[in-house]
Amino acid sequence: MKIGFLGLGGMGAGMAANLIRGGHQVHLWNRSPAALEPLLALGGLAAADPVAAFDADVVISMLADDTATRAVLLDSGALDSARPGLIHLSMATLSVALVGELAERHRQRDVAFIAAPVFGRTDVAAAGKLNILAAGPAEAIAEVQPLLDLMGQKTWPLGDAPLSAAAVKIAGNFMIASAIEAMGEASALAKGFGVEPAQLLDIMGSTLFNAPVYRNYGALIAEQRYEPAAFRLVLGLKDVGLALAAGQSRHVPLPFASVLRDNLLEAVAQGDGERDWAALAQVAMRRSGQA
Amino acid sequence: MKIGFLGLGGMGAGMAANLIRGGHQVHLWNRSPAALEPLLALGGLAAADPVAAFDADVVISMLADDTATRAVLLDSGALDSARPGLIHLSMATLSVALVGELAERHRQRDVAFIAAPVFGRTDVAAAGKLNILAAGPAEAIAEVQPLLDLMGQKTWPLGDAPLSAAAVKIAGNFMIASAIEAMGEASALAKGFGVEPAQLLDIMGSTLFNAPVYRNYGALIAEQRYEPAAFRLVLGLKDVGLALAAGQSRHVPLPFASVLRDNLLEAVAQGDGERDWAALAQVAMRRSGQA
Amino acid sequence: MKIGFLGLGGMGAGMAANLIRGGHQVHLWNRSPAALEPLLALGGLAAADPVAAFDADVVISMLADDTATRAVLLDSGALDSARPGLIHLSMATLSVALVGELAERHRQRDVAFIAAPVFGRTDVAAAGKLNILAAGPAEAIAEVQPLLDLMGQKTWPLGDAPLSAAAVKIAGNFMIASAIEAMGEASALAKGFGVEPAQLLDIMGSTLFNAPVYRNYGALIAEQRYEPAAFRLVLGLKDVGLALAAGQSRHVPLPFASVLRDNLLEAVAQGDGERDWAALAQVAMRRSGQA
Amino acid sequence: MKIGFLGLGGMGAGMAANLIRGGHQVHLWNRSPAALEPLLALGGLAAADPVAAFDADVVISMLADDTATRAVLLDSGALDSARPGLIHLSMATLSVALVGELAERHRQRDVAFIAAPVFGRTDVAAAGKLNILAAGPAEAIAEVQPLLDLMGQKTWPLGDAPLSAAAVKIAGNFMIASAIEAMGEASALAKGFGVEPAQLLDIMGSTLFNAPVYRNYGALIAEQRYEPAAFRLVLGLKDVGLALAAGQSRHVPLPFASVLRDNLLEAVAQGDGERDWAALAQVAMRRSGQA
Repeated sequence: MKIGFLGLGGMGAGMAANLIRGGHQVHLWNRSPAALEPLLALGGLAAADPVAAFDADVVISMLADDTATRAVLLDSGALDSARPGLIHLSMATLSVALVGELAERHRQRDVAFIAAPVFGRTDVAAAGKLNILAAGPAEAIAEVQPLLDLMGQKTWPLGDAPLSAAAVKIAGNFMIASAIEAMGEASALAKGFGVEPAQLLDIMGSTLFNAPVYRNYGALIAEQRYEPAAFRLVLGLKDVGLALAAGQSRHVPLPFASVLRDNLLEAVAQGDGERDWAALAQVAMRRSGQA
Repeated sequence: MKIGFLGLGGMGAGMAANLIRGGHQVHLWNRSPAALEPLLALGGLAAADPVAAFDADVVISMLADDTATRAVLLDSGALDSARPGLIHLSMATLSVALVGELAERHRQRDVAFIAAPVFGRTDVAAAGKLNILAAGPAEAIAEVQPLLDLMGQKTWPLGDAPLSAAAVKIAGNFMIASAIEAMGEASALAKGFGVEPAQLLDIMGSTLFNAPVYRNYGALIAEQRYEPAAFRLVLGLKDVGLALAAGQSRHVPLPFASVLRDNLLEAVAQGDGERDWAALAQVAMRRSGQA
Repeated sequence: MKIGFLGLGGMGAGMAANLIRGGHQVHLWNRSPAALEPLLALGGLAAADPVAAFDADVVISMLADDTATRAVLLDSGALDSARPGLIHLSMATLSVALVGELAERHRQRDVAFIAAPVFGRTDVAAAGKLNILAAGPAEAIAEVQPLLDLMGQKTWPLGDAPLSAAAVKIAGNFMIASAIEAMGEASALAKGFGVEPAQLLDIMGSTLFNAPVYRNYGALIAEQRYEPAAFRLVLGLKDVGLALAAGQSRHVPLPFASVLRDNLLEAVAQGDGERDWAALAQVAMRRSGQA
Repeated sequence: MKIGFLGLGGMGAGMAANLIRGGHQVHLWNRSPAALEPLLALGGLAAADPVAAFDADVVISMLADDTATRAVLLDSGALDSARPGLIHLSMATLSVALVGELAERHRQRDVAFIAAPVFGRTDVAAAGKLNILAAGPAEAIAEVQPLLDLMGQKTWPLGDAPLSAAAVKIAGNFMIASAIEAMGEASALAKGFGVEPAQLLDIMGSTLFNAPVYRNYGALIAEQRYEPAAFRLVLGLKDVGLALAAGQSRHVPLPFASVLRDNLLEAVAQGDGERDWAALAQVAMRRSGQA
């Protein structure tokens, strides 16, 4: 299968590598071409521009955000160049507004559009162990399933409306942010009584909250290890913004998301924007005079 | 070892039964005597009143709340009757204010005071699988460790200050409430885009949030199964109040707890106070017109 | 009319002076007796203790808070010593719980209980220009109206249930706190764009918000003039707590009050507890890195 | 002076009428031409399109929002057609992002840009009694001062940076929304104790809060008179969004604005979007089961 792959950041590079290793002919494009080199060494091919990458059976995009996606897919003319029958697998975390617009524009051009955002960080992407949320035309998903299997440990089907996958991804990220905030506030409370956050978070993360989110972020918070950032706090602020915008479009108030937004903004104002978003926990410490 | 046991509600009954089965002589007291019957059948003994129960080597109290604890331990004269050297194991969830006061009053009477609140519901208590947080004098904890082992799967030591265990218990309950609210808001958001909460919560609970709190409460929320209540919402409101009061005493703002309090109050106003506190998730559904 | 007056802090002293100047025989009591001196010079009389002050036709209490009121009126035996037919005018800001309890205990003793909390600071009290909220038995209010007229510029009748006056006073204080927070956030926002808070607050306070609360607190915020405190921030925290407790007892969520509580707590943690509660505005400045 | 006037909704129509009555030659444009008729009868002149309206000494725009402003001023080519030396007076409430962009684009074309948003509703605009916030080049403001004097009772100068006026307008609207919410919560609290909101709001609006915002909105809330809408709730949601976006761009958390956004969204979900934004007060009533 001839694959075009757009967006080779930390996530995309690992995903593309797994496709190449899986024996596929992958035509790669990235805004900064340096990212292609290790993939060309694996057998990947360079695409001159987004339009060239769209000359394929399947196009996968893993771009940074709405702005990048709009620029690379729409403004470049790439989508307009797509031949009918192409399948486009959009794996980035995008706003519901853009996913809705993309779905409509693909439909007009008779190009199959699958929203397939993922859970997992760069190491998980490199290991081909992502959890993939997939929504779009059933036949198209079936056709790309072998590709999804190379990139992820599991594909979670969410029906034929791409918005469904976008909404679940955004809701999931909101849940992660809420978990971080809850740990941060609980840690500040415990510390107020002389209990080290590490103790609290170890107990909770070993029992009722024995799950990756609590164990992993709990360790970062306990050790105040916010650098290097696996996921920058400003990106978390962006993601919480996606949740708020999605909620607004359907009239769903999200008071926890509002608190998260305010607290992430405060973290940015206090200089933590480029640290890992686990640094959100510092807000509660600082407010209570314990930072 | 001669044990006095005060408070035989759903939790206390299971804990006392395990002590009796472990071969201990347990003198039981409960405000409503009917609760004693099954335990007497197991070999427990009836204490005439709290003072009688305090004629023991170790007294364990598992009373409903601050008010009951104050009435049974203090106003009854029970603590004042305690002989020096007695060990009192307080396993209820109490306010930090009362735990602080109890610690001081025990100190004055030369009675060892251990705060040992637990995580786990009635079925876990019956199975002897509680997670027990223990803080108090080290020798006293060592002495009662065999009893703790009969009641719990693990004892988490938190030093010699009883307040530490109280604070961790309160912080932990706050984390559970936050998880429920986060699932509720995320579910309302997903539903706004046509995704069933069951789908969202299954995906998250199988991956990043693969922990008891998310799986168990996630199932209740997905099925809107709020009756019978394993833990009544009004008790959750009380527990969030304990977190807010604890935070206030140390000047620790807890914005998530404030949202929880407002939303739990709304749930009570809307008639859900006696349902399981997972019904907190209905607030987000109702607000967005999706209930 | 023989009047007993309990509580001669900044407010009570001014109110009692106006009664003495009005020709009344006022028997004064205060925890710290030094406060009596200037009033004795005006013609007031000293009462030996709260019980002695209750040997009167009308008793007025203006005590600091619930704790002081409970100690002076109840624990001292004063209320129990009251003769039937006495009128008690409680002018302090108290919790709805205590006002409800007082109303019941007065009823049992056949003593008329009027809740008559006031708006106005110490200078307004001294000038006899308070706004007085009065709720209680109509005949009793009519009887003390001449006294209310000496202390206030206007009496606002609120029916015969003392709780009504307590609730309005608490709701009013909540509105003041909300106005301070709104000015604080608006000021931080304006400052983020290079506009001095003084400019913003002058414009708003001269037009749509041309009212004492906005002009007076606006000036304090604009000049960051938080000392000396006309009303200490910790008292504001107490008052917001009264609103939250009142709301909880009737299942009324108050999200603004929750924000106020969190932010006032933060202000205390940051060292502003003894400054004027207009210093709440500093929280928004500090969070945004502009303090 | 030859004036172009773009946007003849409820506000713009009154403002343009005052300019015409003041003897100015006003070239009018509106998306829907029907709005011109009463103004042509007063002596106004019709402009064929936005470009024609820009053939003037001064252009005044009073368009609905960012989208309309962008379409009419930028996409139409109107600004690009402006001759150097023209003065553009933008009197609508716009986002800080758009005002910043407009300032830059005017600078590039050597057109003076004054941001001059207003306080006052349609009746105030018709009476020429608006409060006008003006920021831009000092000479330009001086030149248009006679026009501002025809439209407003007072011009509040805010320096030469257009963003300053935009920020103050947005901050002021946020203060109004906060006042409505505070009155709504206070009313729900009072009602919980049997006090009619009308009583509470009359007392507060006659004393400490004796200002137009509290008196006017207080009356609407007291009477639950939310129709016809003088300012629709969905527009209030938009304005609170402008405050949140402005805050985000400068890292200023605004927790009250976050509560407002959530509650306004809930009001929309519950069917109150087209009613007056005083209907925000219904949210607190509904949540507490008192609506």
